[in-house]
Amino acid sequence: MLDICLAGTAGMVPLPDRWLTTLYAASEGSSVLIDCGEGTQIALAEAKCRLKTIDAICLTHFHADHCAGLPGLLLSMGNAGREDPVTIVGPTGLRQVLAGLLVIAGGVGFDVAACEIDPDGSEIKDGYVKAGPMTIRAFRAEHVVPCLGYTISIERRPEFLPEKAEALGIPREYWKVLQSGKPVTVNGTSFVPGAVTGPQRPGIKVLYSTDTRPVKSIAEHGKGADLMILEGNYPDEEKIDKAKEWGHMTYKEAASLAAQAGARELWLTHFSQSVSDPSEYLENAASVFPNTVIGKDGLKKTLVFR
Amino acid sequence: MLDICLAGTAGMVPLPDRWLTTLYAASEGSSVLIDCGEGTQIALAEAKCRLKTIDAICLTHFHADHCAGLPGLLLSMGNAGREDPVTIVGPTGLRQVLAGLLVIAGGVGFDVAACEIDPDGSEIKDGYVKAGPMTIRAFRAEHVVPCLGYTISIERRPEFLPEKAEALGIPREYWKVLQSGKPVTVNGTSFVPGAVTGPQRPGIKVLYSTDTRPVKSIAEHGKGADLMILEGNYPDEEKIDKAKEWGHMTYKEAASLAAQAGARELWLTHFSQSVSDPSEYLENAASVFPNTVIGKDGLKKTLVFR
Repeated sequence: MLDICLAGTAGMVPLPDRWLTTLYAASEGSSVLIDCGEGTQIALAEAKCRLKTIDAICLTHFHADHCAGLPGLLLSMGNAGREDPVTIVGPTGLRQVLAGLLVIAGGVGFDVAACEIDPDGSEIKDGYVKAGPMTIRAFRAEHVVPCLGYTISIERRPEFLPEKAEALGIPREYWKVLQSGKPVTVNGTSFVPGAVTGPQRPGIKVLYSTDTRPVKSIAEHGKGADLMILEGNYPDEEKIDKAKEWGHMTYKEAASLAAQAGARELWLTHFSQSVSDPSEYLENAASVFPNTVIGKDGLKKTLVFR
Repeated sequence: MLDICLAGTAGMVPLPDRWLTTLYAASEGSSVLIDCGEGTQIALAEAKCRLKTIDAICLTHFHADHCAGLPGLLLSMGNAGREDPVTIVGPTGLRQVLAGLLVIAGGVGFDVAACEIDPDGSEIKDGYVKAGPMTIRAFRAEHVVPCLGYTISIERRPEFLPEKAEALGIPREYWKVLQSGKPVTVNGTSFVPGAVTGPQRPGIKVLYSTDTRPVKSIAEHGKGADLMILEGNYPDEEKIDKAKEWGHMTYKEAASLAAQAGARELWLTHFSQSVSDPSEYLENAASVFPNTVIGKDGLKKTLVFR
């Protein structure tokens, strides 16, 4: 089970009625935050998201609207009783940005580890960060500065098949260990869990990518996602030149990515401050990808295994 | 004329219904901001305060709730068309804090000058920053870290007395120059404005001091102020030990300072997040200084010459 909350939906400038885009994902008492602009801690308080359980904070890039809220958030996490270390993930330059921002966040009271990822490097391929049952992987997006997208996934164990265990003559007292994913040795013979389980089952996958052109990597990493959360900075195709110039997407471009990925659902976010009602333009995306939802601050969903 | 807006009134933590304490003062197309915590740019937008005209930003100290909003504010000022330089004033350490925070505010588009003041140094005595007709002076406050308070004042020229000018035989065509505060030379004889004016007249003075114990310097600098804006972090005297420990004031302590200074009015601000309705405790201050107003986000007043 994965609880998702899109606590903010603004792009570039925080508005009195729209927090900057940020995603909070929680599962089994652990949580992950993606992006942390100015006011994100207030957005999270408003959406009743717990600060204390945030194990990882992932930053797409270092424009202020995606990271200026970091000092305040970390201090408030400390006030909320956080003592365990927190991992901050971001593209190359992360350590320098943290050294700068945390000059005003002395006495946070817990360790902050920096996980710096080169968007063009090779380590991104196999690298991941864990937060409870969630696995966070980064991929390369394409903005005017180095930028990452992220997937949050929870794997599902294959079904345990008692008939297979019986056929192999494994006594019942060993079944629980096998079900937990560990191998057992019975009278000198070893059995791996795969010997007594059914086929692979899809887990839960959410993809988040803002401040990017519609590059192939987004559709690839979103393959079969339950939910893709993508920027729709410009609702209208008329603004395509601006989107290209500033490294953003139109609604239609984002919807095309969701369609290519075969995702189940698309949420749009990171709306330009010039757009007072982003939902007015829903059709621009829904005509390409019908199951599109126009994001609103505090939009929540609980995803479960299919 | 001085327009004052207390755009936020929270202390330490920004809340969904209370912005962090910040003061906006505007006169003759120029404006000054004191303190800039997370969300201040949104608070200013909500209170309809113009960003483009901010000539000086004064920081009391470098706890995140007083300065974390700086990168976002500067970027939004740039978006609002600001091109003229902006002066940032703060205690010792300002340059280091700016270097850190501005790592995420590249391309602001105007010059940012740092005016670093040693709270214990001598230069504070005569130092000041100008913004339009406003003069901003810093004084030493007493917090758990180096901290400054500020006064914003507008001087009033003494009244021009035509009978004096006539008695001195100064022709009428020179009066306007003298009225504007400049000297004139008539047939080889120089006249200073003071020769044709009445006695000194009180100008407008506002004092702002948060995150401080009730030290003497506050009352001294508030002498005869039209308005003192002071923290009332703890409404109740019961919290006096906490106030001492954390370098804050109770309502009563703030009210005593306003009384000592002979101020005309006191606004309280910087309320602890544990206080849901700061106005409930008004009497704790009003019993000491009757003309006390409990601050609310967006509280405005226009001060004029008496």
